[in-house]
Amino acid sequence: MRPSIITSPALEQDGLERLAWVRANMPVLRGLEDEMRATRPFDGLSIAMSLHLEAKTAYLALVLAAGGARVAACGSNASSTKDDVAAALAARGVSVYAKTGSSPQETEEHRRLTLDVRPDIVIDDGGDLVELLHESDCDLDHQVLGACEETTTGVKRALERARSGTLRFPVLLINDARCKHLFDNVFGTGESAWTAIMRTSNLSVAGKTVAIVGYGWCGRGCAHRARGLGARVLVSEIDPVKALEAAMDGYEPVPLLEACRRADTILSVTGARHTLRAEHFSVMKSGALVANAGHFRDDIDTEALADLATEQKDIRDGIRGYRIPADSDEEPASTERWIHLLGDGNIVNIACSDGHPTEIMDLSFAVQALSVLYLAQHGRDLEPGAIAVPPEIDERVARLKLKAMNLAIDEPTTDARAVDA
Amino acid sequence: MRPSIITSPALEQDGLERLAWVRANMPVLRGLEDEMRATRPFDGLSIAMSLHLEAKTAYLALVLAAGGARVAACGSNASSTKDDVAAALAARGVSVYAKTGSSPQETEEHRRLTLDVRPDIVIDDGGDLVELLHESDCDLDHQVLGACEETTTGVKRALERARSGTLRFPVLLINDARCKHLFDNVFGTGESAWTAIMRTSNLSVAGKTVAIVGYGWCGRGCAHRARGLGARVLVSEIDPVKALEAAMDGYEPVPLLEACRRADTILSVTGARHTLRAEHFSVMKSGALVANAGHFRDDIDTEALADLATEQKDIRDGIRGYRIPADSDEEPASTERWIHLLGDGNIVNIACSDGHPTEIMDLSFAVQALSVLYLAQHGRDLEPGAIAVPPEIDERVARLKLKAMNLAIDEPTTDARAVDA
Amino acid sequence: MRPSIITSPALEQDGLERLAWVRANMPVLRGLEDEMRATRPFDGLSIAMSLHLEAKTAYLALVLAAGGARVAACGSNASSTKDDVAAALAARGVSVYAKTGSSPQETEEHRRLTLDVRPDIVIDDGGDLVELLHESDCDLDHQVLGACEETTTGVKRALERARSGTLRFPVLLINDARCKHLFDNVFGTGESAWTAIMRTSNLSVAGKTVAIVGYGWCGRGCAHRARGLGARVLVSEIDPVKALEAAMDGYEPVPLLEACRRADTILSVTGARHTLRAEHFSVMKSGALVANAGHFRDDIDTEALADLATEQKDIRDGIRGYRIPADSDEEPASTERWIHLLGDGNIVNIACSDGHPTEIMDLSFAVQALSVLYLAQHGRDLEPGAIAVPPEIDERVARLKLKAMNLAIDEPTTDARAVDA
Amino acid sequence: MRPSIITSPALEQDGLERLAWVRANMPVLRGLEDEMRATRPFDGLSIAMSLHLEAKTAYLALVLAAGGARVAACGSNASSTKDDVAAALAARGVSVYAKTGSSPQETEEHRRLTLDVRPDIVIDDGGDLVELLHESDCDLDHQVLGACEETTTGVKRALERARSGTLRFPVLLINDARCKHLFDNVFGTGESAWTAIMRTSNLSVAGKTVAIVGYGWCGRGCAHRARGLGARVLVSEIDPVKALEAAMDGYEPVPLLEACRRADTILSVTGARHTLRAEHFSVMKSGALVANAGHFRDDIDTEALADLATEQKDIRDGIRGYRIPADSDEEPASTERWIHLLGDGNIVNIACSDGHPTEIMDLSFAVQALSVLYLAQHGRDLEPGAIAVPPEIDERVARLKLKAMNLAIDEPTTDARAVDA
Repeated sequence: MRPSIITSPALEQDGLERLAWVRANMPVLRGLEDEMRATRPFDGLSIAMSLHLEAKTAYLALVLAAGGARVAACGSNASSTKDDVAAALAARGVSVYAKTGSSPQETEEHRRLTLDVRPDIVIDDGGDLVELLHESDCDLDHQVLGACEETTTGVKRALERARSGTLRFPVLLINDARCKHLFDNVFGTGESAWTAIMRTSNLSVAGKTVAIVGYGWCGRGCAHRARGLGARVLVSEIDPVKALEAAMDGYEPVPLLEACRRADTILSVTGARHTLRAEHFSVMKSGALVANAGHFRDDIDTEALADLATEQKDIRDGIRGYRIPADSDEEPASTERWIHLLGDGNIVNIACSDGHPTEIMDLSFAVQALSVLYLAQHGRDLEPGAIAVPPEIDERVARLKLKAMNLAIDEPTTDARAVDA
Repeated sequence: MRPSIITSPALEQDGLERLAWVRANMPVLRGLEDEMRATRPFDGLSIAMSLHLEAKTAYLALVLAAGGARVAACGSNASSTKDDVAAALAARGVSVYAKTGSSPQETEEHRRLTLDVRPDIVIDDGGDLVELLHESDCDLDHQVLGACEETTTGVKRALERARSGTLRFPVLLINDARCKHLFDNVFGTGESAWTAIMRTSNLSVAGKTVAIVGYGWCGRGCAHRARGLGARVLVSEIDPVKALEAAMDGYEPVPLLEACRRADTILSVTGARHTLRAEHFSVMKSGALVANAGHFRDDIDTEALADLATEQKDIRDGIRGYRIPADSDEEPASTERWIHLLGDGNIVNIACSDGHPTEIMDLSFAVQALSVLYLAQHGRDLEPGAIAVPPEIDERVARLKLKAMNLAIDEPTTDARAVDA
Repeated sequence: MRPSIITSPALEQDGLERLAWVRANMPVLRGLEDEMRATRPFDGLSIAMSLHLEAKTAYLALVLAAGGARVAACGSNASSTKDDVAAALAARGVSVYAKTGSSPQETEEHRRLTLDVRPDIVIDDGGDLVELLHESDCDLDHQVLGACEETTTGVKRALERARSGTLRFPVLLINDARCKHLFDNVFGTGESAWTAIMRTSNLSVAGKTVAIVGYGWCGRGCAHRARGLGARVLVSEIDPVKALEAAMDGYEPVPLLEACRRADTILSVTGARHTLRAEHFSVMKSGALVANAGHFRDDIDTEALADLATEQKDIRDGIRGYRIPADSDEEPASTERWIHLLGDGNIVNIACSDGHPTEIMDLSFAVQALSVLYLAQHGRDLEPGAIAVPPEIDERVARLKLKAMNLAIDEPTTDARAVDA
Repeated sequence: MRPSIITSPALEQDGLERLAWVRANMPVLRGLEDEMRATRPFDGLSIAMSLHLEAKTAYLALVLAAGGARVAACGSNASSTKDDVAAALAARGVSVYAKTGSSPQETEEHRRLTLDVRPDIVIDDGGDLVELLHESDCDLDHQVLGACEETTTGVKRALERARSGTLRFPVLLINDARCKHLFDNVFGTGESAWTAIMRTSNLSVAGKTVAIVGYGWCGRGCAHRARGLGARVLVSEIDPVKALEAAMDGYEPVPLLEACRRADTILSVTGARHTLRAEHFSVMKSGALVANAGHFRDDIDTEALADLATEQKDIRDGIRGYRIPADSDEEPASTERWIHLLGDGNIVNIACSDGHPTEIMDLSFAVQALSVLYLAQHGRDLEPGAIAVPPEIDERVARLKLKAMNLAIDEPTTDARAVDA
């Protein structure tokens, strides 16, 4: 393997401090670390991982390494890499290829270097490593036992490959595990997106009109928190059943253009490319905050925003202002109208804050660790395909978490099983 | 067919008034009535239905009759039949076999009489009609096109039959349609259970400790409303993932015995037989309100409660008191401890109130009407089995409802489809 | 005294059952009953009371009688009198002058008969008895020790008399006691108004647009519960600071006409005469539910509604429909537009349900009982005027209630007193 | 006047950027700036102010200067001073005496220098400047027109001086203005305390048990937001009426020791000295987050915490860990138990974040600006004493804010005034 490519080894100490904090607050993963350190289930196996390279992810890498794996890691997104964490990870024997602010070409190169570990198992975020392993010129001279896919976006890509019969190995759909999407997407995104918006803007949520674009798991998490913080919430959603759910949940479903016209803060959570486009920027109020809690930079068409703007400037750490010309019919040409984009349109909770709350990721990454274990034990027997995480993994993670939270529940009795799913 | 068996034809006028009210407040079903009256899709077909025989259900029967069907109906539960509605329905040409307070034998007889219509299509609630049609001595001399099953409980029975390969015809799992369980179970049960408890007791919910037993769709609806009304909410749930969701939703998961010890109001929403048993009654506080929002009378072991009680009396309309002996360790033998059971342990929103809110049933019954239509059109081509409601039915119902609520949503664009399910 | 004037003594048993229920659920008042029965602080004193004559009020009368008082009672509102409770009260030795549905003249006569008890102390609801005692021809040949006024409306009248210097005796402003308005108005009105609306209409609150007119203590209680039940809430309020609070609380402040245009349910909670007038009825949606949770029948101009209507009919128990002609500009003349008025415009939680939740009134009536005791002990030394309830009464009631709820709090330490009021 | 004492003039540009941001988001104050710049109501007057010296406060100083005043400013708390803002303010002609991290002696010296401006009007935070002006050796050779006091703590001090008859000039109780405490304390503290805790810890609030100590205006704001973010909330409060309100609001009132035992996060909001003491630290869970949202550093006895600790270390920016010895009865001596103190016990929203949301301070500081104007116009005619802010100021500020939020309300009609306060 190539030596690690990181910004500076000198940042190791800061990274270790961050790692200590997340370790202290990830009790489920900590328990699995102890167990895996004792049982060494990954001895002789290589793991390549691509995730937002910050402290929680790094701890997952160390847990797998403690279980005997040879681990190589790259960042799934150059803007989310924490250089101090990368330094600490490299110092602990993981091959790391990640630098904040690396170019798209460099990021691509880092991914390829990571695959030099000749992974038995892949941990992926958005499907980028898996795609590389399916490229025609990828000389896979060994059997990949399988991959674990973290996100909605990556799951979608895996399902497409599965449908077309082109998957070369099994992909476990981590995102669809109950202990992942019911918590990470809803509570993780919901809370951290607002933490990011509040800390970056120093503006209040209470009293504001907020537009949540998309009412999937992440979107409803963002909507619930917006209401919990005192906002009036508009929801823009194209699936009529979800739109109706939003209405029954007490929100106001409106078309996207109307949402953009009325809202003080617009949070896109669709994961769909260019959800917010020029036509939407054109109708926003002056001072509107615009942020993305969907996937990567896709939700917001930032190029269109830049094209539309007659002036741009940095307003505040994490906020860039775009001056938008008057919309002829409704306002005098002299009016100054500014749109405030957070985190350059990158996922706001990572670009403008520290990502998901630590304990939430404890669940997601415990599912990851046990899924990697499942692949190590059963991957050889699985057919290529998109595969659900076995329910006993979800159940085990939930039980461990409840125990860590000091919460007891009953065991089912033979004649009293709930039927109301 | 035997003439209708109802309590009194003289109640017709009251029943018609109730029907007019629900018709006015079920815009989706009303639209389908107009359409079916024009297109007559059920001409020549017979439909047998077993549902809680109150105004909303009756209106569904009239919509199907307007579409050309010959309809026979019985009540799924003797305690929920509204005699005035039965009278109005009989007067409108439906064969009705239902009387409030009929004995189990009579209720069984009513079911059998309903099947005399020789149904092409069955609408069922809990699977009772479907079971009769599978009895060894049932001389089915014609092909049943299919059945539509309304409840979680009935879905479970259908799935068991499907697994064992003994289903004779297709059963559409209405309960699992998104426009059913996401609304009827969550919002319907949630709101109407509390309406029933509040109107029957004239006691406050705010400030109380409430135990919700079961955190399925119905249970979480009941929990959300309890919190919305100002209660502190304990949740008792045996599925660890759901228990963890309850914790993240801000509730306190506890074992059932502890919930019964601490709560002022205990609402069982499991649909599981004898969820609340003697051991639970023994630890409840004096004055505790106990109610069932699960299925039929199963959730609460009322016989055990009666056995345990040293005295019983009617306390108030819909509330019966059971004097429970002192629990030796914790209280002096002289203490009077009364448990207050609502609606004799029957489903509280039906036994002590008017059932689900009308507009919610508009969704469920629009799914029913369109599923009956689907069976009429496609039943001949379907294999026996437990079958999901086609997604286009859900989508159509949701669109009609949004329109009735005057809420507009966007059409999907080609490149902007949400990926966050 | 004249013998009691009630509808039927035969209803006594039903009334006793209701009394037993409220006694069981009013632990604070029950404790005071025990204490007063032992100490007899009212021996030799007469008390005249005018309140909504239902079970909770009746129990207050019995507590005062247990303390030695000679009690005479009339109903403050003919529509709220429960005849069975009146019968039970009369059978227990209280002089009762109250019949459901008595005419305004009869109600007035009942008030005058009540004063024949030559009250030392008056308990009043809206200031009617106090006004009578200030009429020029009222031959008060004895010193009234004082009155206790229950409502916002009556407090206002007392303050006006106090300002103009025409009060003949002290009036304790019960409504302004913290243990009254912070609970009775907010939680009592909030919960019971919605119980009444839900049980009367069998319609859902979730998903609806609800207009709350007035954001005082009662109004915000109604708004919080509407949101807790899943509605989108519009608030119409003329005080700009309260309107701003509503906005920060997450509601949408709008002018009243706009609220009436957009809402599915309109709940007036101002206590101001004719808040809802012809101009407002003219713009409401067809099917709009209209209810009053303010004071008496004043909030809604029911005469104007009747004048406007081209047709009226009873739709359902507690709901009367008024057909309103088309508003020329916006709809075709042929459209049928019906407004649904609940409880004939009387206070909806009393007219269509059992009034405030029992435990809430436990607080209000404990304040009443202790305030009557205060007047008995100190009334002779007080100047005429509008007087605040002594804070130690509030504190004692709250401590008793917390104890009854099994909730412990700390005693203040000398150096750790909260300064953030 | 002495030249400004600031950390570095070079920080001016950063400070100007911050000022531009708050100006853009304080529309009410901006309107008053325009008006005062035109009318120059403070020409010839001097103003001394002591406030948390960050961007919003600085903008208030500039508004007063735009109105003609000669302004001198010091920081009310060395830990909250933003050096860049101080630099920008000094560059704009205000005399500034404030440096981050200045010693108590320096801070005291800065206050005295500020008074060298020989203020006609004082703006105070906690009463420090007012106290200096009442010292026996303060040679007040001119008439102070009056002071404006911002906080609950300072109001308490002013009321004590008023009661003892020792106030030399009128003090307007800004904190008690409706447009201040109903918004700043509830929504400002509530939202910003949680923003600070979330951003500093990267831990989730959802699923946690949170203890709010004190249920005054600030405390209930913090409680509402904690619930809105998904926490289970314990409330510790010594006033029984407030504790009962907390219970009816759906929270669980518990004694402070129990709260400290059960909570994951403990937030003290009493403003009372040493609310959290050694006995409380001794029972906290390992990993407990402890923060102060009360006043200054008083709420938490940090010395006692340091004394108790066997080890201390910085865990993360803004979090210091204290190792607490085992509580002999309940845990083995070997257990590592760490308490995590945020912001060294200083007010967490200022120490660990940017203070209150900008728009909230727009209300508070508009009240300040108009109260200063009131003193300029009427101070000469006022007697020394603690004086309520005139209600027309509250009303004007609220109307301006509603207008800035694009929210319309009705004007009162003559016969329709709300009576439900």
